[in-house]
Amino acid sequence: MKSMMDVFEHTLQDIYYAENALTKALPKVAAAATNPELKKGISEHLAETKQQIKTLDAVFKAVGKKAQGEKCDAIDGLIKETEGVIDEAKSDKARDIAIIGCCQAVEHYEIARYGTLREWAKVLGHNEAHDLLSSILDQEKAANSKLTNLAVAQANKK
Amino acid sequence: MKSMMDVFEHTLQDIYYAENALTKALPKVAAAATNPELKKGISEHLAETKQQIKTLDAVFKAVGKKAQGEKCDAIDGLIKETEGVIDEAKSDKARDIAIIGCCQAVEHYEIARYGTLREWAKVLGHNEAHDLLSSILDQEKAANSKLTNLAVAQANKK
Repeated sequence: MKSMMDVFEHTLQDIYYAENALTKALPKVAAAATNPELKKGISEHLAETKQQIKTLDAVFKAVGKKAQGEKCDAIDGLIKETEGVIDEAKSDKARDIAIIGCCQAVEHYEIARYGTLREWAKVLGHNEAHDLLSSILDQEKAANSKLTNLAVAQANKK
Repeated sequence: MKSMMDVFEHTLQDIYYAENALTKALPKVAAAATNPELKKGISEHLAETKQQIKTLDAVFKAVGKKAQGEKCDAIDGLIKETEGVIDEAKSDKARDIAIIGCCQAVEHYEIARYGTLREWAKVLGHNEAHDLLSSILDQEKAANSKLTNLAVAQANKK
């Protein structure tokens, strides 16, 4: 990686790998959740994630690069942490609140990455890529807010 | 983990491990950075991180638990990703912007975790822990904003 475009492409490949990894991990997380609204929210976010991968395909196309993933250690760690708490939780309540916490950590990772990527796209003059990445960023922020609301309104009871 | 208190303690141990891991990783990141303001910012955040560990000691004490870390796969992955981009960057510019992106991913991870932890502390009636965790959360948000400002004002040039 020498130029900003190289770093942009590398980070785009990272998040492409991350979104694909999430499509494999989320069904297990939804199955482990007990709260019906949490279960439904995770399933809906899985469908949204599949659409985001198509949007990322369009971002790669807009910047004239081939859509491909590159191993992202951060998402692998975040998913491993989520699987770990699911295993260690010995009550539905503990599992649900731990899952919400882990899902919010994943959303925040994505918010950081899309925030950076769209700014780089703007500087690089890739306006279409900027707009597409902004649309995914808005979805991740909304997904995070939904989780906060669910935690505060329902899950976070002693 | 059966109760909310169990999940709170587990997550507190995770972030304690994470902050300690960062005190080991950040000197290498500061050394790899070229932009003087970035270098200085990372060094300052290292000092802040050491203080945050002391604040976490006080949180453990406030909730009547022993201060100890537990392996946190997420931070291990985030640090591995940061070390990876430092290795792969072949210009000062590429390395600096990649480092800022990775540091912001770490800050966002911490923002997610402290946001969740302080809410759990409140529900559990641990008001002192809530206030201490809120003070760290505010620092992480400020550190993230500083990185955004640095990226926009200086680093993100084509």
